[in-house]
Amino acid sequence: MTDKPNYQPGLEGIIAGESAICKVRADVDKLIYRGYDTSVLALEAEFEETAHLLIEGRLPNKVELSAFKKELNTHRIIEKPTIELIRALPNTMHPMDVLRCGVSACAGWDPDVGDNSHDANVRKAIRLTSKIPVILGVRQAHLEKRNPVYPDPTLNHAGNLLWLLNGKKPDEDAIRIMNTSLTLYAEHGFNASTFTARVCASTLSDLHSAITGAIGTLKGPLHGGANEAAMAMLEVIGDASKAEAWVMEALAQKKKIMGFGHRVYRTCDSRSVTLKAEGLKLAQKRGDTKYSEIAEVVEQTMKREKNLFTNVDFPCAWVYKLLGLPVDTYTPIFAAARVTGWSAHVIEQHDNNRLIRPSEDYTGPMEMEYKKPE
Amino acid sequence: MTDKPNYQPGLEGIIAGESAICKVRADVDKLIYRGYDTSVLALEAEFEETAHLLIEGRLPNKVELSAFKKELNTHRIIEKPTIELIRALPNTMHPMDVLRCGVSACAGWDPDVGDNSHDANVRKAIRLTSKIPVILGVRQAHLEKRNPVYPDPTLNHAGNLLWLLNGKKPDEDAIRIMNTSLTLYAEHGFNASTFTARVCASTLSDLHSAITGAIGTLKGPLHGGANEAAMAMLEVIGDASKAEAWVMEALAQKKKIMGFGHRVYRTCDSRSVTLKAEGLKLAQKRGDTKYSEIAEVVEQTMKREKNLFTNVDFPCAWVYKLLGLPVDTYTPIFAAARVTGWSAHVIEQHDNNRLIRPSEDYTGPMEMEYKKPE
Repeated sequence: MTDKPNYQPGLEGIIAGESAICKVRADVDKLIYRGYDTSVLALEAEFEETAHLLIEGRLPNKVELSAFKKELNTHRIIEKPTIELIRALPNTMHPMDVLRCGVSACAGWDPDVGDNSHDANVRKAIRLTSKIPVILGVRQAHLEKRNPVYPDPTLNHAGNLLWLLNGKKPDEDAIRIMNTSLTLYAEHGFNASTFTARVCASTLSDLHSAITGAIGTLKGPLHGGANEAAMAMLEVIGDASKAEAWVMEALAQKKKIMGFGHRVYRTCDSRSVTLKAEGLKLAQKRGDTKYSEIAEVVEQTMKREKNLFTNVDFPCAWVYKLLGLPVDTYTPIFAAARVTGWSAHVIEQHDNNRLIRPSEDYTGPMEMEYKKPE
Repeated sequence: MTDKPNYQPGLEGIIAGESAICKVRADVDKLIYRGYDTSVLALEAEFEETAHLLIEGRLPNKVELSAFKKELNTHRIIEKPTIELIRALPNTMHPMDVLRCGVSACAGWDPDVGDNSHDANVRKAIRLTSKIPVILGVRQAHLEKRNPVYPDPTLNHAGNLLWLLNGKKPDEDAIRIMNTSLTLYAEHGFNASTFTARVCASTLSDLHSAITGAIGTLKGPLHGGANEAAMAMLEVIGDASKAEAWVMEALAQKKKIMGFGHRVYRTCDSRSVTLKAEGLKLAQKRGDTKYSEIAEVVEQTMKREKNLFTNVDFPCAWVYKLLGLPVDTYTPIFAAARVTGWSAHVIEQHDNNRLIRPSEDYTGPMEMEYKKPE
């Protein structure tokens, strides 16, 4: 604590609410969603199972999973005015800004608009989870001056996301590792974007408002933007033989190296370990190890010099590159996964609401006298 | 404090940061903006002076005020795709949802996009302050099936807001009381919408993202939606002679009466006192005292029965009614004022940033074993 009672800059270590969704178990280096080890879910479960676990509160049985997938397929569609907006926004606009506009507009046609009940929130969450890859696909096709492709109901969610973004049918390996990354990105407690969603929902505002706010928050380079920043660094380094010298020089200049450390983790981010192992297998299978090799040298150098570990954004950067995804889409893909966690938090907040309204410590002047402008 | 250390539900009483913008001085029943008494600003200063005080950090001199007004006039314009979106969104969409979409889209054409420096933030804040009344005016004209009117550079900000919303030139009395209400709504410390904006900005996301999130938060009936809810109640009561019985019945049924009490104020909301006094003068001058009379009985009954005072949303309801404004526009007007306070907080957050990332108290299961769906 600081010398001011009840004050901790950035609310670090301050408990802002109770939640039964996610916990970082530092004692065993595990991240759990509703009690399940994410390193198991990431390799053995489909993202749809994790989405069901987060949004509906429990893992689905076979029949429920099938119904859930069917529901996702039904809603992979967006309205014409939303498509027109996505295409009319300037090409220079940040993809997270475009996604924020798209999600905000989708609210207008949601059949449960105005209903904040538990069941309506669940339905809205499933619809938005369906629609986000469509928004991203329409925008990416527009930027690449090609026609958007239509969602493919024979592909799962990870497969559709790759298909809509790249306009090329993904192979099984690509779908598998995208599934892993979406599962690992799905939820992470009271991070800044999720906390934004909860503060918003706590005024009894609606799920679309909360998710729109969360997307804007995730955009920041201190949050979701880190995977793009990490890839930009790997591209600048360009070759594994130059990586050690580059990192040493960057550290000497006190530059921030993205993809390392974390406010919550202290020794290791288990998500990074899981994704890196899968990524290395894929890189070797494809004979495309350029960026994973650079990343390895950066990681070892950071470990030796700063004793810092990689967080999930670091392997994510070169894994998404391996999948042929444009760097600008990395943070939006993070959002396409995290929408499930955000939704779970909005539902939990509404189910047992209390307005989130902290205080501030006023440091300005107390007595100023107004005079007409002269 | 609860029995859990560092935990207070809803962060009530928890200091989430330092700020030199606004303080509720409970000792003298005053609300101050950067040291200035708002009950003085609300009656003696133009809203533009308060906007300058909040965004630029100090009151303007005559030359600065003139330049600031000119700048506001220059930016009272929105791009064609934004106009088309505002018209294409379903007529049933909540006006705050429409505003959220409009502000989000405006980011695409802001010349300072991508620049989070102090000066760029100030410029973006001024532009958004200009554009919000235009967004509201285009939407209202569309709903009323009339052509939107063009902003009038001979009117001040309060006058333009009335002109754009009503499509009729406002008289001096209307402009004066709108000016008062905008000044009183401009800023209020770490309320939920402002806190949303700060959490968003703390990831080094941008001002438009932060304001978009804040609009979604202000929408909630526990926050900005209260003025609309209060007016809906006054309309249902319908006559001063029925007001006491209506309130007694509502209290007996434990209904929440909107426009009363406040988490920060304990004995009185000075904004309510200021706005009510001005509103009563206008109601009498116009010979239109129907709703102010109902409001008076509701206020006295609530005082007697519950010892609760009115907050600013209560007189605001019948004052806006007196100005011929549709009830649906009350919360958006609140946003048109509060954008200046939100912007001041984004600027302050970026000037001395620290990621806002609290913790949660996990209450879910710890050890669950994953099995394939059966």
